[in-house]
Amino acid sequence: DAILTGLSGMLTELEAGTLTVVGDDEDVHSWIERVLVERVGEPGRRLHTARSRNDQTGTALRLYVRERLTAILSSVAALQATWLDQAAEHVQTWLPGYTHLQRGQPISLAHHLLAHAWALDADARRLRAAWRAAGVSPLGAGALAGTPWPINPRRAATLLGFDDVYPNSLLAVADRDYVVDAAFACALLMVHLSRWAEEIVLWASAEFAFAALDDSVAKGSSLMPQKRNPEAAELTRGKTGRVVGDLTGLLVMLKGLPLAYNSDLQEDKEAVFDALDTAANTLRAAVPLAHGLHYRPDRMAAALVDGFVTATDLADHLVARGVPFRTAHAQAGQAVRAALALGVTLWDLPADTLATVCPDADPAVAARLTPEAAARARRSLGGPAPERVAEQLIQARAAQAELVAWLARLRPPPIYEAHLAGRLLAEVLR
Amino acid sequence: DAILTGLSGMLTELEAGTLTVVGDDEDVHSWIERVLVERVGEPGRRLHTARSRNDQTGTALRLYVRERLTAILSSVAALQATWLDQAAEHVQTWLPGYTHLQRGQPISLAHHLLAHAWALDADARRLRAAWRAAGVSPLGAGALAGTPWPINPRRAATLLGFDDVYPNSLLAVADRDYVVDAAFACALLMVHLSRWAEEIVLWASAEFAFAALDDSVAKGSSLMPQKRNPEAAELTRGKTGRVVGDLTGLLVMLKGLPLAYNSDLQEDKEAVFDALDTAANTLRAAVPLAHGLHYRPDRMAAALVDGFVTATDLADHLVARGVPFRTAHAQAGQAVRAALALGVTLWDLPADTLATVCPDADPAVAARLTPEAAARARRSLGGPAPERVAEQLIQARAAQAELVAWLARLRPPPIYEAHLAGRLLAEVLR
Amino acid sequence: DAILTGLSGMLTELEAGTLTVVGDDEDVHSWIERVLVERVGEPGRRLHTARSRNDQTGTALRLYVRERLTAILSSVAALQATWLDQAAEHVQTWLPGYTHLQRGQPISLAHHLLAHAWALDADARRLRAAWRAAGVSPLGAGALAGTPWPINPRRAATLLGFDDVYPNSLLAVADRDYVVDAAFACALLMVHLSRWAEEIVLWASAEFAFAALDDSVAKGSSLMPQKRNPEAAELTRGKTGRVVGDLTGLLVMLKGLPLAYNSDLQEDKEAVFDALDTAANTLRAAVPLAHGLHYRPDRMAAALVDGFVTATDLADHLVARGVPFRTAHAQAGQAVRAALALGVTLWDLPADTLATVCPDADPAVAARLTPEAAARARRSLGGPAPERVAEQLIQARAAQAELVAWLARLRPPPIYEAHLAGRLLAEVLR
Amino acid sequence: DAILTGLSGMLTELEAGTLTVVGDDEDVHSWIERVLVERVGEPGRRLHTARSRNDQTGTALRLYVRERLTAILSSVAALQATWLDQAAEHVQTWLPGYTHLQRGQPISLAHHLLAHAWALDADARRLRAAWRAAGVSPLGAGALAGTPWPINPRRAATLLGFDDVYPNSLLAVADRDYVVDAAFACALLMVHLSRWAEEIVLWASAEFAFAALDDSVAKGSSLMPQKRNPEAAELTRGKTGRVVGDLTGLLVMLKGLPLAYNSDLQEDKEAVFDALDTAANTLRAAVPLAHGLHYRPDRMAAALVDGFVTATDLADHLVARGVPFRTAHAQAGQAVRAALALGVTLWDLPADTLATVCPDADPAVAARLTPEAAARARRSLGGPAPERVAEQLIQARAAQAELVAWLARLRPPPIYEAHLAGRLLAEVLR
Repeated sequence: DAILTGLSGMLTELEAGTLTVVGDDEDVHSWIERVLVERVGEPGRRLHTARSRNDQTGTALRLYVRERLTAILSSVAALQATWLDQAAEHVQTWLPGYTHLQRGQPISLAHHLLAHAWALDADARRLRAAWRAAGVSPLGAGALAGTPWPINPRRAATLLGFDDVYPNSLLAVADRDYVVDAAFACALLMVHLSRWAEEIVLWASAEFAFAALDDSVAKGSSLMPQKRNPEAAELTRGKTGRVVGDLTGLLVMLKGLPLAYNSDLQEDKEAVFDALDTAANTLRAAVPLAHGLHYRPDRMAAALVDGFVTATDLADHLVARGVPFRTAHAQAGQAVRAALALGVTLWDLPADTLATVCPDADPAVAARLTPEAAARARRSLGGPAPERVAEQLIQARAAQAELVAWLARLRPPPIYEAHLAGRLLAEVLR
Repeated sequence: DAILTGLSGMLTELEAGTLTVVGDDEDVHSWIERVLVERVGEPGRRLHTARSRNDQTGTALRLYVRERLTAILSSVAALQATWLDQAAEHVQTWLPGYTHLQRGQPISLAHHLLAHAWALDADARRLRAAWRAAGVSPLGAGALAGTPWPINPRRAATLLGFDDVYPNSLLAVADRDYVVDAAFACALLMVHLSRWAEEIVLWASAEFAFAALDDSVAKGSSLMPQKRNPEAAELTRGKTGRVVGDLTGLLVMLKGLPLAYNSDLQEDKEAVFDALDTAANTLRAAVPLAHGLHYRPDRMAAALVDGFVTATDLADHLVARGVPFRTAHAQAGQAVRAALALGVTLWDLPADTLATVCPDADPAVAARLTPEAAARARRSLGGPAPERVAEQLIQARAAQAELVAWLARLRPPPIYEAHLAGRLLAEVLR
Repeated sequence: DAILTGLSGMLTELEAGTLTVVGDDEDVHSWIERVLVERVGEPGRRLHTARSRNDQTGTALRLYVRERLTAILSSVAALQATWLDQAAEHVQTWLPGYTHLQRGQPISLAHHLLAHAWALDADARRLRAAWRAAGVSPLGAGALAGTPWPINPRRAATLLGFDDVYPNSLLAVADRDYVVDAAFACALLMVHLSRWAEEIVLWASAEFAFAALDDSVAKGSSLMPQKRNPEAAELTRGKTGRVVGDLTGLLVMLKGLPLAYNSDLQEDKEAVFDALDTAANTLRAAVPLAHGLHYRPDRMAAALVDGFVTATDLADHLVARGVPFRTAHAQAGQAVRAALALGVTLWDLPADTLATVCPDADPAVAARLTPEAAARARRSLGGPAPERVAEQLIQARAAQAELVAWLARLRPPPIYEAHLAGRLLAEVLR
Repeated sequence: DAILTGLSGMLTELEAGTLTVVGDDEDVHSWIERVLVERVGEPGRRLHTARSRNDQTGTALRLYVRERLTAILSSVAALQATWLDQAAEHVQTWLPGYTHLQRGQPISLAHHLLAHAWALDADARRLRAAWRAAGVSPLGAGALAGTPWPINPRRAATLLGFDDVYPNSLLAVADRDYVVDAAFACALLMVHLSRWAEEIVLWASAEFAFAALDDSVAKGSSLMPQKRNPEAAELTRGKTGRVVGDLTGLLVMLKGLPLAYNSDLQEDKEAVFDALDTAANTLRAAVPLAHGLHYRPDRMAAALVDGFVTATDLADHLVARGVPFRTAHAQAGQAVRAALALGVTLWDLPADTLATVCPDADPAVAARLTPEAAARARRSLGGPAPERVAEQLIQARAAQAELVAWLARLRPPPIYEAHLAGRLLAEVLR
């Protein structure tokens, strides 16, 4: 009773800002014990019964990692929502899909943005798996061998909001998988964001000019007011390195450590904090960055004109007319060469030229070779045709909504809710 | 019909060894097409209709990654079985649990081995998540924008044994998450094995001598026949680096790549092959390595005698007698100092000495301070008490059995089964 | 005598291809001993007197690393020569220098190529430092503690072409710094090449089109003959990851290894071989890649027109006329805005407009604001003005020539030269 | 004049603590300009003439990296001195040299400590190479293309204490090699320290007990006063990971960045600061850690008794008597087996047994097979014989003294000395 009342009072004051963690205590656990003893006297000296710094540290870190992952997942959902809204507006905004940074085949901007949204969906899965991995309570494992006290680690786990409890006390204090899982999920998330950021840098260049950057997300220059340095995108890309470095550092640290606890494990904190903070901050900056991109459909359309991005479609047409695939490919290549020589697009190729190089072509095929027509015709699953993209959007929105719903269902730990409700004693003793 | 028959014939010959992949074709897909055309003529030229190297490459790599992950999971199950069997034999083999490589508290060898088994259980979860991530078919995504052909990517996915199909054609050819997931699962698995390997190196040293290495797993010396170099364990530890390097390499490669396909992605193969091969080979060597360890309970017991590993238990006893935790700790420390001064163990401390430094102690406590008694008394969840370890063993065996059952349920791709059964055409056209 | 004659005969046959290393010997040292004994009988059994596998392995690896580094340095010199030749041709080919992938200030292509050449010069220094680090002979260190035999490790080092000899036998067998140094030098070299490769990918895009790729270095498409996939550049960029991974792997492997030899060190080989091979092959491909770039000065010039890349020069002009730097910057920014509004370049800005926004400007300044004039005026050290670039070229050629001269001075190990000259016995016994 | 006087005044106040860098300026360069303008008025607005943030940032970072590397090198020299002093005391303290953590051959503690000292000597070389790499001034490179102002970058470089000046303005702002070089030097240094730290953890264990840890460097326990957790050593080992991670992060960040400046490069700072700080702090803690190790020659000697660590010496004796190496090895192995069977050391093997298994052995050889005799006999270069170790010590002291002398010769930048001496204007205008 004294301990619970004392701790609850301390927490209230900490949240009110009237109490702060200061002093030269070894760590926060020692500080809590010292302050508690100052307040409630002798019972405070019983605080660490059946406890060890080793299981307490793991408990605190797991709770922290979960909390941060939840915040990251909220930002993931927000970024997905932004991309999906933009996709919905650009189902019929056409641009070249690139391979090797060469114009390849016509797609829509919606199709392109959805690719990034799906990559983020995989990140959400990975982040949630890391969240689950962190949801196993080590409390009760003691220094490494549990305790002779008749404790109830399952009850403690429930009160703290964990999903499960450690199976083995030795591993409970030696395990840092949840830290590595979280760092890995952040690292791959950052790699995905770096791919998007690279595109922003490209698209914001004068050469591509597929997007103009809003003043809010570009760093301007008083000297060259036309310049819009895509600094937020560059930092997104640049910060990928540090999170990969955090992950590497953790793996190096763990390599070759015998069981159970070693002080090397202290080094888990700064690395995972940095990975979580960087991912959180980068995502938080990504939403305004996405909003600050003014897409330029005119430039995208212009890029479609001279890329022969529908050569595949001509070949497919020939195949449909019975020409074997390889032969059709060769003939379509001839058509491109002819168009190049004449300085025209594929869909403006004179009928007689087409008939010469592609004898099996339907003369009416030209109309189907405009980029827009070709994109609309690509109706296979996951393709750029508007009806397929509409389906994708529904699917992606459902995935995003599921994440939002999952986040909404999260609750603070029961023990914290009991503290807030002033029912701490009743709940704990239940 | 001609294509299917031709391909099936090629596969039969490949498996019989009468056909081999040779020639200067650009890749295996080109080789298949060329040989097929040589055999069935013109229809072979239609093979690549509605296909692209980009989606084919992804399809092949995903199938390969899954196959290798399955083999790794089989080895995981085998190593778990070995450890669990050894644990069952050593529920009452006592040794010190270490923190900071200092003798800490008494545990059993079973308890120790189970810690490693549970770490491997987490690896199995991670490997299976990577397996699931690889189970999404990209076939039908074409070069990046799907195809105007009325293909059925879901049917293709089913025939190839995939669980799902890509939602977005652009991402389908640009995504390498499954490769990174697999490399990460292998890297953390190797880190876990490196921790076990480090212990073997320690235990095989003359100083610890907790285990003798069988000739089969040690490298001997004609000159120093008493020497048993734990080479297999050292290589396990040493090979951890290369898999961490493979993972790092993949993340570096992906960083900043714009959508969709870039040739940088070719570099996914050697890295993930190396990670999968190293993990597979290391695990395969781990089973005989585990079997080749002859544990030495005598040496483990000796290590328990002079470590004061039951000081915590004396403190806990005092706490149970009403002494506050911090005071109890200080008194137990006095008892250790007294024992050190007298050159006796804690359980042989003269009654009057004990009464002086720990006035609240029950004189009969000495008997409870032997390492074995103390270990038996640690009955909290996941602790070393035999009844708890027995529960843990049941739980761990169930987890291992679930993995074995999952592996047993795996089936080759339907299309391959149809090929074997000579029902290829019927199945495909169904 | 028998041993030397036997070994020399074996070497001659190995080089002639009439002898090959086969058999199930533990390693190549065992194979050599076995074959030698077969040939010369009992004296062969004396081969390993005062030798150990540990110092022999280190000796062989150091010689190998040096040899490969030498080959890499030759390729570095060749790539530098290519870039310097191209620079000499393009001292007056103007293009925008970029920051943030935004057009910044006018430079010449020579200036740009020289930046890459200087980065490579730093790589050469680093590679040579790694070469020196590998030049310390460990032969004579034995298993770890030297030998009671009155050997002469300095003489052995000289005969093998080493520059120095180990100071401490324990470190001699435990040290792998030379391996890590070599991997690091390769990793940073690859990072530099990845920066150049990224630019090639950009320049080869339709959007930049600063360079056309020759058929020899681009992967074309029968279907889209206008496409030139910059595959060699992408692979250069993509392979950077694996070398960074090799470096990481080595550092992970070494972390926490106690002295002296541990089998973990076996893992040094594949990682450093891969790093050296990748760097060597990438460099070898870089020379034809550089030759295969057809620069397009017309496109570069066009990119200079609409970028206001001389705004800084207008500001500098104002400063020279007494306007404080910050005020001058603001006025130049006004001039850019005015030009943007009028749709003209800075150098075509009407005189009255200029007089209004920049009252202190000399009306004749316009002529100095063309990109070419501005680039020519940037005569500060290391700047784009042709006379400065000419100086840079001389300096860079001298650095490259020094490397070539250093390479030319390298000699095979004296013992190998003695073998070739049939004076092995005389030289060794000298 | 006004600018110099103003800046000098600001610096004086900054050092006196009466001025602090506060405000929402974009960076410290903007802050300096703003405060200067507040103090000296209009001349302050001319401060950035012929300057750019890009070359200023590089200049500041290079100066900072050099300063930190110098501090690290001082600590390296201090740690070397500690080890060398301890080595001098332990030239005749014998212990087993280990391979595979198995007792191998007898060496002295001096020999062992010198191995670590030489590894640190290589670190000093690498750190000084990084220091030299940082010693190239980028000031004058401007944003990327220099400036039309007739500046004198060489003079600026000299005043700032740089050794050299950039050859190419474009590379000057894009180059971060010096940052990566510094991070690499720190990473390999940390790996070396991790190897030493691992040994401390081993030696401090009850099983080895080759060293007792002083209270000052061990974390004790009030409960188990005999426990001495080697926390400082564990943290040294554990912190290796973060520096490897810093290095990896930098390489990832740089990969694929086109010339010249990109904001990704901002990410260089935290990574290199962390690498430098971690290396500096770890080294600073290493000196007291080394002093806090109380070596236990008794335990080391005991470990020599039962390891048959002189079997090689018996074999060498037989070889010297004319027995071929391989045969001698086999016979020495027989002798070990015989000793094992009899439960005696090799040097206590009965003469008749020795005569049976090693018929060519001199009966008097036994006396030469004690570990001490054998270590003394290993007089080859770099071996454990006291006279060789004495030579090594002289050599190592000379190398350390050279480093100390180099450090002593370092001077603050001339401009800073001029500021201190109140001769700023005179010096700068000289």
